[in-house]
Amino acid sequence: MAKPISFARGAPSLDIVDVDSLRAAAERAFASDPGGLCGYGTAIGYPPLRAWIAERHQVEPEQVIVTNGSMQADAFLFDALVEPGDVVIVERPTYDRTLLSLRQRGADIRMVELEADGIDVAAVERVLLAGAKPKLAHIIPNFQNPAGYTLSAEKRERLIELAQAHEFTIFEDDPYIELRFEGSPAATMLSMGGDSVVYASSFSKTVCPGIRVGYLVGPAELIARIVKRATGTYISPNMVAQGIVNEFCRSGALDRSIETAKQALRERAQTLAEALRRELPDARFVSPQGGYFMWVALPRGTDVNALFTAAAERDLQFVKGSDFVLEGAESSLRIAYSGVTPAEIEEGVARLADAYREVTASEKADAA
Amino acid sequence: MAKPISFARGAPSLDIVDVDSLRAAAERAFASDPGGLCGYGTAIGYPPLRAWIAERHQVEPEQVIVTNGSMQADAFLFDALVEPGDVVIVERPTYDRTLLSLRQRGADIRMVELEADGIDVAAVERVLLAGAKPKLAHIIPNFQNPAGYTLSAEKRERLIELAQAHEFTIFEDDPYIELRFEGSPAATMLSMGGDSVVYASSFSKTVCPGIRVGYLVGPAELIARIVKRATGTYISPNMVAQGIVNEFCRSGALDRSIETAKQALRERAQTLAEALRRELPDARFVSPQGGYFMWVALPRGTDVNALFTAAAERDLQFVKGSDFVLEGAESSLRIAYSGVTPAEIEEGVARLADAYREVTASEKADAA
Repeated sequence: MAKPISFARGAPSLDIVDVDSLRAAAERAFASDPGGLCGYGTAIGYPPLRAWIAERHQVEPEQVIVTNGSMQADAFLFDALVEPGDVVIVERPTYDRTLLSLRQRGADIRMVELEADGIDVAAVERVLLAGAKPKLAHIIPNFQNPAGYTLSAEKRERLIELAQAHEFTIFEDDPYIELRFEGSPAATMLSMGGDSVVYASSFSKTVCPGIRVGYLVGPAELIARIVKRATGTYISPNMVAQGIVNEFCRSGALDRSIETAKQALRERAQTLAEALRRELPDARFVSPQGGYFMWVALPRGTDVNALFTAAAERDLQFVKGSDFVLEGAESSLRIAYSGVTPAEIEEGVARLADAYREVTASEKADAA
Repeated sequence: MAKPISFARGAPSLDIVDVDSLRAAAERAFASDPGGLCGYGTAIGYPPLRAWIAERHQVEPEQVIVTNGSMQADAFLFDALVEPGDVVIVERPTYDRTLLSLRQRGADIRMVELEADGIDVAAVERVLLAGAKPKLAHIIPNFQNPAGYTLSAEKRERLIELAQAHEFTIFEDDPYIELRFEGSPAATMLSMGGDSVVYASSFSKTVCPGIRVGYLVGPAELIARIVKRATGTYISPNMVAQGIVNEFCRSGALDRSIETAKQALRERAQTLAEALRRELPDARFVSPQGGYFMWVALPRGTDVNALFTAAAERDLQFVKGSDFVLEGAESSLRIAYSGVTPAEIEEGVARLADAYREVTASEKADAA
């Protein structure tokens, strides 16, 4: 039995988590503010971390709520804004958990094609001109999950114009922003769009997932409503975890941790791209500029369900493209390179190529 | 301006939190299981802590979910079991946040009088005989919030018989169980009632509130449904916090911490009872056998709204009895003695008595 390799989970491998700095941050946090860490606190989050986030985004603290991970933040936001039947624009493909969460709330989901430079804004415009009145457009601007694509500066501006003209909110879901391999990031829509934008991010990709600290930034009135909802759900989020993150950020460990993660991820993305070009030349993909994911399109007609089974027989996991759309994407898959070493990537791509040869050979036999 | 004194908040003062052991537990947890603390984990909670809780309650781990505080557990349970219009029996008075949470879900709430030995089971029976088909009965069996009363062993048995005969679930909400001042606790209904009981508890009162770790124990099938809901809400709860609690529990710090809290709380409860008897002989109360709270009834007709204002003018906070019922309880209040020292209790009761004299003098003047 070969060692299992997972291209499935969007999580960092432990070697790019700075555990020693986390331990040290915990030590300092308990020593410097035992009352703040041990007490209930309130649903706004740990105030010094809230202040740090507000400064980072150049907003008022009243515009920030710090939550138990950013998915919990998404849930509060959807509960506050999305009623059954409300139109919500999302990218196609998009994060499967967001899709599920919106479906559970009975949203009228309109998927708009994602291009290599971000959502097709002309298609968004057509949806609007056809009379749709969206409440929300959910956008993952940097190194999108699952595609790895990044929204261009021009499209960011156009989206904000559309949001302002048609009075919908852009939900800028941005957990990967710090993980850009080269160059400077485009400005956030939050910094450009004022009250038209609610921004979410997380420390899962820069500190670690198990710390479960995420946040929302938005108009103070909306944040106040969400704080009320959060109070009724859990009184307050985890003060111990947020106190640790606060120390981690303010001590400089965050910047070091981001540097470590970026270097490792850049190497992994590069190894993946090279291995795919060499071993699986039928694969089409855009090399990501950062983040965790690569979207791989195989020739039309390739049965990715069969590929999934054939890969599993070789102890290789990935997520099928069809999980990230309402329908279609049967010949695509998502590869997460965040949790695997370069050597595992080489071996994983070899297994994938082998599985692909088996599946296409059997397809050819069927066609003959 | 006098130093403010709060009889309002049900939280421990920092001197009864073992911060040093928390720091040491964090140190050990990061060292011994960095992967478990830093990774996403799953919605069941941190597996070693889940196993510890299962052993403590003599159940299978599949019957346990560990959550971000027990209020979050309550919310998941209510989402799973309570539809709008469903009948839910609660104690009168009961925890205000539970009441709010049930109201928000549109439950048909039936409050049943709480006696010094727990809910009036004959009255529960009358509700059932009148044809109500409750989904759930919410019971806080030990040192109830807000009343401080404890459910007798006989009533526990009778409640389980009723739950089995009328096919409703008892939600045994038991965060204070470890804080008994003297003697042995009555058996939990969970240990007596099998699948008729879902049990919730928390480490807020034995480790600290800011750590936000609570849990549910119940039938495996129901817990599996709640795990699915939790996955969709936040992927997983806080692994760092749960890893710290696991070390805290297994190292013996938990037992020491409980001993410290019990001794302090016993002294505070005693000081409060003596001060009330001396300073405010009109007050009626039952001395609690444990926990954080004492319910104080003043003579019928006393205006506790006015008392609240008069107390606030003396920098004393408490919670009005009316907050814990749907209607009535206008002459009662809840005193939390968990967050105040014996000296503060003496001073707080003096202020309360002074406020009471002012209010009753003005009532007498009005009546004249």
